[in-house]
Amino acid sequence: MKLLVINPNTTASMTATIAAAAGAAAAPGTEVIAATSAMGPVSIEGFYDEAFAVPGMLAALRKGEADAADAAVIACFDDTGLDAARSLARIPVLGICEAGLSLASFLTPRIAIVTTMERSRVPLEHLVARYGKSHTTTVRAADISVLSLEDPRSGARERLRHEIRLAIEHDRAEAILLGCAGMADLAKSFETEFGLPVIDGVGAAVKQAEALVALGLQTSKHRTYAAPVPKTYHGVLAGFAPVEAA
Amino acid sequence: MKLLVINPNTTASMTATIAAAAGAAAAPGTEVIAATSAMGPVSIEGFYDEAFAVPGMLAALRKGEADAADAAVIACFDDTGLDAARSLARIPVLGICEAGLSLASFLTPRIAIVTTMERSRVPLEHLVARYGKSHTTTVRAADISVLSLEDPRSGARERLRHEIRLAIEHDRAEAILLGCAGMADLAKSFETEFGLPVIDGVGAAVKQAEALVALGLQTSKHRTYAAPVPKTYHGVLAGFAPVEAA
Amino acid sequence: MKLLVINPNTTASMTATIAAAAGAAAAPGTEVIAATSAMGPVSIEGFYDEAFAVPGMLAALRKGEADAADAAVIACFDDTGLDAARSLARIPVLGICEAGLSLASFLTPRIAIVTTMERSRVPLEHLVARYGKSHTTTVRAADISVLSLEDPRSGARERLRHEIRLAIEHDRAEAILLGCAGMADLAKSFETEFGLPVIDGVGAAVKQAEALVALGLQTSKHRTYAAPVPKTYHGVLAGFAPVEAA
Amino acid sequence: MKLLVINPNTTASMTATIAAAAGAAAAPGTEVIAATSAMGPVSIEGFYDEAFAVPGMLAALRKGEADAADAAVIACFDDTGLDAARSLARIPVLGICEAGLSLASFLTPRIAIVTTMERSRVPLEHLVARYGKSHTTTVRAADISVLSLEDPRSGARERLRHEIRLAIEHDRAEAILLGCAGMADLAKSFETEFGLPVIDGVGAAVKQAEALVALGLQTSKHRTYAAPVPKTYHGVLAGFAPVEAA
Amino acid sequence: MKLLVINPNTTASMTATIAAAAGAAAAPGTEVIAATSAMGPVSIEGFYDEAFAVPGMLAALRKGEADAADAAVIACFDDTGLDAARSLARIPVLGICEAGLSLASFLTPRIAIVTTMERSRVPLEHLVARYGKSHTTTVRAADISVLSLEDPRSGARERLRHEIRLAIEHDRAEAILLGCAGMADLAKSFETEFGLPVIDGVGAAVKQAEALVALGLQTSKHRTYAAPVPKTYHGVLAGFAPVEAA
Amino acid sequence: MKLLVINPNTTASMTATIAAAAGAAAAPGTEVIAATSAMGPVSIEGFYDEAFAVPGMLAALRKGEADAADAAVIACFDDTGLDAARSLARIPVLGICEAGLSLASFLTPRIAIVTTMERSRVPLEHLVARYGKSHTTTVRAADISVLSLEDPRSGARERLRHEIRLAIEHDRAEAILLGCAGMADLAKSFETEFGLPVIDGVGAAVKQAEALVALGLQTSKHRTYAAPVPKTYHGVLAGFAPVEAA
Repeated sequence: MKLLVINPNTTASMTATIAAAAGAAAAPGTEVIAATSAMGPVSIEGFYDEAFAVPGMLAALRKGEADAADAAVIACFDDTGLDAARSLARIPVLGICEAGLSLASFLTPRIAIVTTMERSRVPLEHLVARYGKSHTTTVRAADISVLSLEDPRSGARERLRHEIRLAIEHDRAEAILLGCAGMADLAKSFETEFGLPVIDGVGAAVKQAEALVALGLQTSKHRTYAAPVPKTYHGVLAGFAPVEAA
Repeated sequence: MKLLVINPNTTASMTATIAAAAGAAAAPGTEVIAATSAMGPVSIEGFYDEAFAVPGMLAALRKGEADAADAAVIACFDDTGLDAARSLARIPVLGICEAGLSLASFLTPRIAIVTTMERSRVPLEHLVARYGKSHTTTVRAADISVLSLEDPRSGARERLRHEIRLAIEHDRAEAILLGCAGMADLAKSFETEFGLPVIDGVGAAVKQAEALVALGLQTSKHRTYAAPVPKTYHGVLAGFAPVEAA
Repeated sequence: MKLLVINPNTTASMTATIAAAAGAAAAPGTEVIAATSAMGPVSIEGFYDEAFAVPGMLAALRKGEADAADAAVIACFDDTGLDAARSLARIPVLGICEAGLSLASFLTPRIAIVTTMERSRVPLEHLVARYGKSHTTTVRAADISVLSLEDPRSGARERLRHEIRLAIEHDRAEAILLGCAGMADLAKSFETEFGLPVIDGVGAAVKQAEALVALGLQTSKHRTYAAPVPKTYHGVLAGFAPVEAA
Repeated sequence: MKLLVINPNTTASMTATIAAAAGAAAAPGTEVIAATSAMGPVSIEGFYDEAFAVPGMLAALRKGEADAADAAVIACFDDTGLDAARSLARIPVLGICEAGLSLASFLTPRIAIVTTMERSRVPLEHLVARYGKSHTTTVRAADISVLSLEDPRSGARERLRHEIRLAIEHDRAEAILLGCAGMADLAKSFETEFGLPVIDGVGAAVKQAEALVALGLQTSKHRTYAAPVPKTYHGVLAGFAPVEAA
Repeated sequence: MKLLVINPNTTASMTATIAAAAGAAAAPGTEVIAATSAMGPVSIEGFYDEAFAVPGMLAALRKGEADAADAAVIACFDDTGLDAARSLARIPVLGICEAGLSLASFLTPRIAIVTTMERSRVPLEHLVARYGKSHTTTVRAADISVLSLEDPRSGARERLRHEIRLAIEHDRAEAILLGCAGMADLAKSFETEFGLPVIDGVGAAVKQAEALVALGLQTSKHRTYAAPVPKTYHGVLAGFAPVEAA
Repeated sequence: MKLLVINPNTTASMTATIAAAAGAAAAPGTEVIAATSAMGPVSIEGFYDEAFAVPGMLAALRKGEADAADAAVIACFDDTGLDAARSLARIPVLGICEAGLSLASFLTPRIAIVTTMERSRVPLEHLVARYGKSHTTTVRAADISVLSLEDPRSGARERLRHEIRLAIEHDRAEAILLGCAGMADLAKSFETEFGLPVIDGVGAAVKQAEALVALGLQTSKHRTYAAPVPKTYHGVLAGFAPVEAA
């Protein structure tokens, strides 16, 4: 199977981190195709960046489906544009927050998400509520920028460690879900250090995508995620107009 | 005060309907400035269209705030891009679903939203849940397109009436909230016909915007809606990159 | 329009504070008529006082509606007798907790109510739950009496400040809703001091009342808030018996 | 033990029905003292009547506690003034809705309340939500007046039967909770007729009151239900002012 | 009436504690029959022990019902096997967590459960959620073993005291519910020490059982708790197979 | 990897159906080991059967883990004994209801579970609530016995079809989750017939188990699912006593 993994920000070095995590998680028969969004922000930090990351992500998804991808992963922990993606595509589309929460829920009823910026806490709490996990999951932020994760001298990792410790002691967390695609390479070392499961959403989403493809399951096109109605789009986004399916 | 009312789709005739409703609701001292989005879909029907309506709406908001608008209304019942708008602007931004639900809640504990397309029910139910009104509010769809509301021969109004009747009889609704900005001109005739309050979100949002401005209240920029972090944006959306506030 | 603002306790000096706040918030065309309840407690602190404040408030409402008020505000943060008031009157009736929460929700998803007495926390948490805002709102008490707010030497303001600080730091509050009508004059100075929105429910309710009147909206008399059934009342409350509407 | 059972409306014939049900449920050592409220409405139908029934109920409670009652029951299914009563008294106070729901929950996870008037559905749904039973309990109304229950020719019983049937078939109810104190005498015949538990709240509350007294448990006076603060009350309700406990 | 009180663990000394608490709570006409489970764990600490305690508990229940018990109490705070017991028996069956929460809810809207082992917090939080009391109830653990409660030198009581103090100060608890059947003898001394209600679930369940029997109420056998379908059971549990009711 | 799939009832023919479904879903490198419980009921229909199915399931799990299974699936839609299993084992353990709901949630926000017996609806609704999916999922029962699924002349399939149709039309379901392990072979034909995703929990759980093993994730043994405390067990279940891990 061909699995499209989309980095919805435009930073190629982060795509590399994501692709490595996806490749490490993928089954032997899975070809991972990592795509970097061609337009939008270099990182997604809060609601504003998220809004501008969606068109580029959807463009990458449309191209990937045309190129015969069997499933897609949106590799940003905000699950950026996930509903729009499911409306656009017939193939299954996974968000890494939703996928990570699902896997974590099989391991414990007490989960903590540790993310980057304080402003991302409420957006993630909205996702957690929508996925029905408010009663099992808390969200903490290390107050670091997304791109600082790529700089070992930034102190970002130490701040993450500090929040993980607080999550275990004060929030009664029994497993940690890493709240940013850029943290994918940290899961195993943190797992060893803290002695409890540390889940990376990218790997989780890769396995869920493989699961759906193996079982022959696709997004329901009945009602909520029905294909977009063909219509005119204006301006620089005209090229994204939905058209009658062939 | 200057009140910006943004139609986030690109159909100018719908902007006219919205502007009329806004003007009718506005206080004597309020100057309503109606803006049609310059890019994106001609109507917003489901998650996909919504994603592509956000950049044009935010462009209109940015321009309006620069032109000294005191508050803004996003005149689409999906509250399209509302969180991004609140992050971008310092002035208050209102969505017509949130504003309509708030006003309706002062009149009764049993509300029914009647919207256009079946595919919009789940997105609206998500909004209702997020605004904390799932216990008082049901959502129905008349299975009509948004633009059919502009055509008196389309039968759209009769289908709306049918759903309103069902809402009153089967859902125990005691007030109706019209679930599309394009229905703004129908509120009063339906109110007379059905003998209970029928609320149009556009008017509701206009009054809420006036209220916030009169009270000197602005969006909290503490944490969740902090101004976007200055950074590079790529591609056709590069012009939307957030910059350091002067 | 004529707007009736009812202080449901019998302390005229508090009515003056409330009337000033209401007048400052009111639009030019709004005539504010402030009424002090003629019977019941001098302040409302907890469930018991609240029960005895309702008949006096309803008497003031009945008189005000007969005197052609277009809308009414109950200026006690417990939203004392709000449901009974909506059953009695045809004109819209606003509670200051409900109105304040609605306005605050347009500004941020993280609200803290700061009220007076510890015993009022649970009653306010019940209101917050009923209005669907438990997921966005926390309640704190400064452990001060209602009437101490009128005495600048009581230390009450400093205790309020202390709780506001805790709300911002520990509860992640991004806006403050003042939890007593007697705090109406403190909003602006606290807003300056803490650098985030501080909302007074009296002003919020005045604007919501104006909004409903401007839009021609009235309480739904369908089912829940139907006019009281004419019947006999006995004892000192006999004068309150509902009668057949003329 | 002495058990005060208060009918918070002023209709003595309904007190007789309630007293009979209470007496039938009471243990041999329990002396039931039935009190009819001396002031307020002849029946409680909706929020307005409820507000005016509270002072009379509290007067009866105060007198009963002074006369050495060990516990009290408020025999109206709206649990009229229950929080105020718990603040006033040291002895335990039971509402018949809360008590009935508690007992019913021991028998099945699917309960239907069948009450009198349509306008009482939302108030009862609020109680059900506050008691945490929304996930197990539905509310139906037979559209009959409270006092019609006393008239065998009114057809009220047949309408109750009709709603019970619908509750079993459509709401999957497995037990019925009678939603009015005036229905107390119908429980056993309905139980026989429908073949599932039919619970009367008056009997339930009597047993809960006996349980609390037997176990030596009293209302917590810590914070929420602390004794009312001594203060001045004005007007016809001046006599209800809380005073310093001796 | 005959009341069966089942200790679902196999420790007879704990049965003695439970029997004493039940006897102290029982009405004069109630004969308490205490049964110790004949098979399974010596104490129930977490999900695993709970699973193996159920067959022995059900065997004791079956025997008790055959011996003409009128009601039964399962005296373990996990409400071990409660749903299975209600399916098996026609007589009412009470769990001590559910019964204790019900009684506590009549006394205050702020309850704290204090239990033994940390691993029991999540199971009890699940019960609290299912009983609809998450909004009023918090759960704390003293990190002690169940059987240490029987050893006065173990320090267990001091650790319970410590958690009760934290519950009152930090969780705003206004009443304490003891979270283990083995704590039944501590309620009264803690009540005196802390000055607020301390509830033992065993006593609570005894009174609820008496209440149901006095009112002639039995478990609803309609749907959810219908008698088990007669069928073959294999292996060492073959003797537990449900058979056609005579 | 070795994947243990446990049929917690004792009917070997149902194990064969389950094993076929598991084998069809398994990846090439996965060895499926299907185990039939050696003790307990021939089918699990309601709470009573469930209680007696747990010891046999746990015995099979203990043996499987000793025989080097990498993960386990409990193939009964009640997720029978899942918490106990996670406490016992270090390897991941999946329930088919939880796994099926997780996968279905990636495909649509409107799911219907269609199960066998009416008495199983409430138990499944409890699971759905605990997994946080009450807002997306409804439960229907076809009123058929579990073993009738194995008899093509029983009419069971037609009744399932009938409920699926009602779920789509009345509950707005957009995907169907089959609510019994014995239905595993029906998914694909129903999917073709109804034109929307039909999910079998057995296949879903197999893929989730493979995902966890591939990612090196195991049950968190921190607090809730800590290994059972070594202690004495009595009677026929003595052999199940937890012992000190080597």
